[in-house]
Amino acid sequence: MSFDLEAYLVERRCAVDEALERALPPADAYPPRLHEAMRYSVFAGGKRLRPILVIAGAEAVGGRMGDVLPTACAFELIHTYSLIHDDLPAMDDDDYRRGRPTSHRVFGEAMAILAGDALLTHAFGLVVANFAGGTRPLGVLPEVLSEIVAAAGSPGMIGGQAVDVESAGNVVAPETLEYIHTHKTGALIGAAVRVGALLAGASRPALEALSRYGTRVGLTFQIVDDILDVEGSLESLGKTAGSDRRKRKVTYPGYHGLEASRARAAALTREGQAALTALGPAAEPLVALADFALNRKA
Amino acid sequence: MSFDLEAYLVERRCAVDEALERALPPADAYPPRLHEAMRYSVFAGGKRLRPILVIAGAEAVGGRMGDVLPTACAFELIHTYSLIHDDLPAMDDDDYRRGRPTSHRVFGEAMAILAGDALLTHAFGLVVANFAGGTRPLGVLPEVLSEIVAAAGSPGMIGGQAVDVESAGNVVAPETLEYIHTHKTGALIGAAVRVGALLAGASRPALEALSRYGTRVGLTFQIVDDILDVEGSLESLGKTAGSDRRKRKVTYPGYHGLEASRARAAALTREGQAALTALGPAAEPLVALADFALNRKA
Repeated sequence: MSFDLEAYLVERRCAVDEALERALPPADAYPPRLHEAMRYSVFAGGKRLRPILVIAGAEAVGGRMGDVLPTACAFELIHTYSLIHDDLPAMDDDDYRRGRPTSHRVFGEAMAILAGDALLTHAFGLVVANFAGGTRPLGVLPEVLSEIVAAAGSPGMIGGQAVDVESAGNVVAPETLEYIHTHKTGALIGAAVRVGALLAGASRPALEALSRYGTRVGLTFQIVDDILDVEGSLESLGKTAGSDRRKRKVTYPGYHGLEASRARAAALTREGQAALTALGPAAEPLVALADFALNRKA
Repeated sequence: MSFDLEAYLVERRCAVDEALERALPPADAYPPRLHEAMRYSVFAGGKRLRPILVIAGAEAVGGRMGDVLPTACAFELIHTYSLIHDDLPAMDDDDYRRGRPTSHRVFGEAMAILAGDALLTHAFGLVVANFAGGTRPLGVLPEVLSEIVAAAGSPGMIGGQAVDVESAGNVVAPETLEYIHTHKTGALIGAAVRVGALLAGASRPALEALSRYGTRVGLTFQIVDDILDVEGSLESLGKTAGSDRRKRKVTYPGYHGLEASRARAAALTREGQAALTALGPAAEPLVALADFALNRKA
């Protein structure tokens, strides 16, 4: 394969990290403990998958990274806030995330809740910042915001988390498991691709192709997460492996078995990649990212 | 006084309640427990002060209620989410709010956290909805969103809450107390007035007058809150009176005494009202609302 995904990821990740550094209030801005907590979780070694998907979504329709960086950062802040709240004692009660103590272990529960709230709020400010200076026509801003609100809110990610929380310890129907997966992780991943493309002026047919791609890669991502939780270890995951099973949470392999889970993830990846053929070589990064989401080990 | 504030408040409150009813997902939308929790706290008998300030801010510069209702509702959702999170065991640990059990007492902590997150997210969707159908020029949307993000986020309300949480049980400087008050409550109240006026196409001088008004009324509101907590009872407040003192939280009367607190609130109200003289009779509702914020008993 000619496309060098490793180099692509490193380049994009560096640009995103630098943009996040500028996008967040400095750690000593008043009140410092709050801003420290916000930065602690944002700069905890994330893969920056969602921001990179925003960028790759824009590139797939001829856009450039520089045009979408603030919004790419917004997706990372939304993802980070959801992890902080998800790790809270009242939710998943996780002590470690990416190999480091979770926010509430370092800053206390109250500050962790507030840091999450502040990151979510700040994310919307970054989307607006993407339109600063009048260089970009405002016409697409409402659709971009509506996509993000739907993907992150009660019809999307939060809905998935709510059902996940309610299902812990219960036997659930396969439809419920699919709902959790497509919403908890899939909605935001799908929106990242679409929003990047929207900002780059994508046509409706291109957007539809990218939606088909995003839905499938998002679901793959969560299935692989579940597989890694079954197989993984503290070293490679940076969180306590087997934690889903320990909490008796429903998982894809728990329901369908490991082999069927792997087969489903592979099939979804192929379908997602097939949806991109009409976009040509500009979609190469997205094709490679789908393989990456499937084959990752952490 | 010729202006009938009581009738004004009833009319606006009814319109806001009806708009909120339409603006929130139905209680049986999937997942129902989450949407129930969102509605439980929004329809808990709030005064709708912030949405009414959005409306009155628009009216003060010639706008109409119908033009700003979705954004007015957004302010109520942000206020409600902040109360849900503030009441959590890790934060203020309050069992009652407006005479009813708090969200986490009814729905559990996890669902209360998620309901708050979902209300905050949905609020931004409502601001966008205010521009739906292309009836309103988009030019003002970025400034409206930036105002809300700054007022609700770490430089505003969440910053105030963070310092409040950190100060509980400690002796704090008067500047710190002032910071908590102006940010925790004042920022969102001030933004409500400004955003209403922005949506109605206010001039810069009008906006500046409304900012002076909003800052002062916001601070008054929090000082009166503190006074009521010292004087109040469970019946009139709907929450446990004296709860601030019991938690050893810093309050305005705790620092400056009851008499000086009342005098400061009255002086701030007069200053805020004086700032509106150039706006003429259109600002009558805002003048009356300042008296209302000062003289309320709950």
